[in-house]
Amino acid sequence: MAALDTVLARIDANRDAALDRLFRLVSIPSVSTDQAYAADCVRAAEFLAAELNAIGFEASTRPTRGHPMVVAHGKGARPDVPHLLFYGHYDVQPADPLALWETPPFEPRLVEAGAGTQIVGRGVSDDKGQLMTFIEAARAFKEAGELPCRVTILLEGEEESGSPSLPDFLAENKKELSADLALVCDTSMWDRDTPAVTTMLRGLVLEEAVIRGADRDLHSGMFGSAAVNPIHVLAKIIAGLHDEAGKVTLPGFYDGVAELPEEVAEQWRGLGFDGEGFLRAVGLSVPAGERGRSVLEMLWSRPACDVNGISGGYQGEGSKTVLPAEARAKFSFRLVGQQDPQKVAESFRAYARAALPADCGIEFISHGASPALALSFNSESLSRASRALQAEWGVAPVLAGCGGSIPIVGRFKSDLKMDTLMVGFALDDDRIHSPNEKYELSSFQKGARSWARILSALAA
Amino acid sequence: MAALDTVLARIDANRDAALDRLFRLVSIPSVSTDQAYAADCVRAAEFLAAELNAIGFEASTRPTRGHPMVVAHGKGARPDVPHLLFYGHYDVQPADPLALWETPPFEPRLVEAGAGTQIVGRGVSDDKGQLMTFIEAARAFKEAGELPCRVTILLEGEEESGSPSLPDFLAENKKELSADLALVCDTSMWDRDTPAVTTMLRGLVLEEAVIRGADRDLHSGMFGSAAVNPIHVLAKIIAGLHDEAGKVTLPGFYDGVAELPEEVAEQWRGLGFDGEGFLRAVGLSVPAGERGRSVLEMLWSRPACDVNGISGGYQGEGSKTVLPAEARAKFSFRLVGQQDPQKVAESFRAYARAALPADCGIEFISHGASPALALSFNSESLSRASRALQAEWGVAPVLAGCGGSIPIVGRFKSDLKMDTLMVGFALDDDRIHSPNEKYELSSFQKGARSWARILSALAA
Repeated sequence: MAALDTVLARIDANRDAALDRLFRLVSIPSVSTDQAYAADCVRAAEFLAAELNAIGFEASTRPTRGHPMVVAHGKGARPDVPHLLFYGHYDVQPADPLALWETPPFEPRLVEAGAGTQIVGRGVSDDKGQLMTFIEAARAFKEAGELPCRVTILLEGEEESGSPSLPDFLAENKKELSADLALVCDTSMWDRDTPAVTTMLRGLVLEEAVIRGADRDLHSGMFGSAAVNPIHVLAKIIAGLHDEAGKVTLPGFYDGVAELPEEVAEQWRGLGFDGEGFLRAVGLSVPAGERGRSVLEMLWSRPACDVNGISGGYQGEGSKTVLPAEARAKFSFRLVGQQDPQKVAESFRAYARAALPADCGIEFISHGASPALALSFNSESLSRASRALQAEWGVAPVLAGCGGSIPIVGRFKSDLKMDTLMVGFALDDDRIHSPNEKYELSSFQKGARSWARILSALAA
Repeated sequence: MAALDTVLARIDANRDAALDRLFRLVSIPSVSTDQAYAADCVRAAEFLAAELNAIGFEASTRPTRGHPMVVAHGKGARPDVPHLLFYGHYDVQPADPLALWETPPFEPRLVEAGAGTQIVGRGVSDDKGQLMTFIEAARAFKEAGELPCRVTILLEGEEESGSPSLPDFLAENKKELSADLALVCDTSMWDRDTPAVTTMLRGLVLEEAVIRGADRDLHSGMFGSAAVNPIHVLAKIIAGLHDEAGKVTLPGFYDGVAELPEEVAEQWRGLGFDGEGFLRAVGLSVPAGERGRSVLEMLWSRPACDVNGISGGYQGEGSKTVLPAEARAKFSFRLVGQQDPQKVAESFRAYARAALPADCGIEFISHGASPALALSFNSESLSRASRALQAEWGVAPVLAGCGGSIPIVGRFKSDLKMDTLMVGFALDDDRIHSPNEKYELSSFQKGARSWARILSALAA
């Protein structure tokens, strides 16, 4: 096994070339949710497989009904070291609204900001820059000798669209993908100077509803008020989802939601999280959600419901007095604790159906459902990783919750019986899923060094 | 003055050429609400001015801040005949959703339907086919001799987008455009066999509202429930606009709304209007509006509120867990009786502002406001026109209300002190503002003959 110092020196020496590789990956518009970019998803997968083959992995792209997986196996590790499965995703969110990007989303560039240099482009933080930190660490080990652990890499191309192919792929390749511990790099640091290990994840239920009224668009002057308006119906359904106190009204929605244990609540209070500052950074000032809950609770330990998109009728410039035949909205439910994704989806559908007036039909489209996770991984792995992160950043990592959802972690637990160590180097102001997404150059560089230290620590 | 029979014979002889002229006009995509079609609006205006010059009018296009007007003066009429101002509009509604058109919207064609031949294309009924009935009648008079009345023609290019340039244009050209009576061809027949003169029109207030929350799109997992969601806010505003009985909740909204006089109510009941059949024709069965009102009341004599379009967040394929920075909707209010458009707009804005939570801003965009009209035109003109229509169709016209709004008629009354005779040949199933808009070939042909008879009757 190569000496850690040699490996870290290789990472530092590789900086410019590593950035060039990341730029090439970010330049591929691998938007998974839109079929128009299907060929780009294949290109991104092939690029990564080639990169991994070049640094000594046995890597290949593997077809699915959707976008391909990349699977790579490290060679040459000793048989007595832990077997790790690293997971990342090469697909990205749609770049719209395009007009708000200062430069084209798939033409990555460096920007000098007050706090340091930023890499800007769609997917640079979520998750291309993050997954490349691990690959650059693996490259440095290879250049300096060999990997300290047995490493399998799984890169997915459908994370941003609900991972529809993942369950079958894991089931069909269970033996090949099972390991002692999974590593995921898709989460954030606590702040610019403080790393974090994420130990709680919210689940996610994605439902789209299409309300249909008349069999064609109508003139609102000729039919308005006599003919049902699907936009009105949809608005009532959305408006009824929350009560005055900000709680979700669906029957049974809070089944399985426990209050935070006092010791965890106290730890979180001790973090000194500035909820108002968090909101002020995006132009807001007052928490909008459940009354009586802190912002950190809202984001980490309480369930939530949001409409992510709505459309119906005329949306162009000016006016058009149309009474539309249909209206649609995309709903997401964030789950915690023991909430059952299936029951939440069913409760939502029953509620929406019951809200339909005469003459309206409704169609539901599921875009995925996954439960919440509170990780109870091997404490030895966690403490080794924590010490490794402290060595790199000079400060102990925060053991954090996460408002987002990483369904793969639940799958690893339920299907492959693996715990997952979630370490990521994104920052809360990275504008992931938004225009002008960025990743700190320091996250990219110190992230690779962090993984080198963690791999070394896990093998010791 | 040419003998009426000669004029009618000319109209019949001109049928194919008239259809060709209409097709050329419909082929020009003069969508007024979308600036991308501004040059097409100019083309349509120039086409009409050229047509009118060719049949002996002094016609020209007249610039406005928006799309041009066409103004034409007939020559050679005797000084003792009535002076008529004919109004139509050459602009059309947007053609979207394009996918639902069976053939391209701006490639007009004839379709054989069960009840007769139809002309299909955007704007063929609203209002290009209708305005051409009048021009073809004028052409026939010219070919047979001269016009029986002094005729001025005003063709507008912004009717479908709230007529923003019209008030100033009327004010600046008051003398030139004032006449004894206005004629408007933008309304419907009672049914396929029964003509109608429209005597009541609803007013229209068009308001767009944009709700803004955070200063950028956010990740709903990272910010959801802590950060305000503009889609939820907009949905609450829309949901609160109607009560359980279908009445509009805005304070003061029903000020100036009178109950229908019993004699009018009785006349309407006598029409044998089939409300259920009206709804069944578009795939519906139950009136959705104010409880306790007939469909005809809802459409002709009661005010209404509809959302014509809504948008916010991700609207593409699949899902995107975005918490959008803004959401917007387009509202229309149909007014009756003495409802004050300005007060309705103000009441709506006050209501929406009061519904805003902390951290949300709202922007309002007015797309026009006009009062309702109950016409009390010269009974001599009405009875002459009625007799003329009966001569053409073999049945007396229905004196009808109209659910739509024709703001120009209010302007003619308030600014030019003219009454308006509204006669149109559209049918309720013409799919105006919808895909596959059509105009009956019989409406086009007998419409031209009807105008010839009306002009002749008004001059007698």
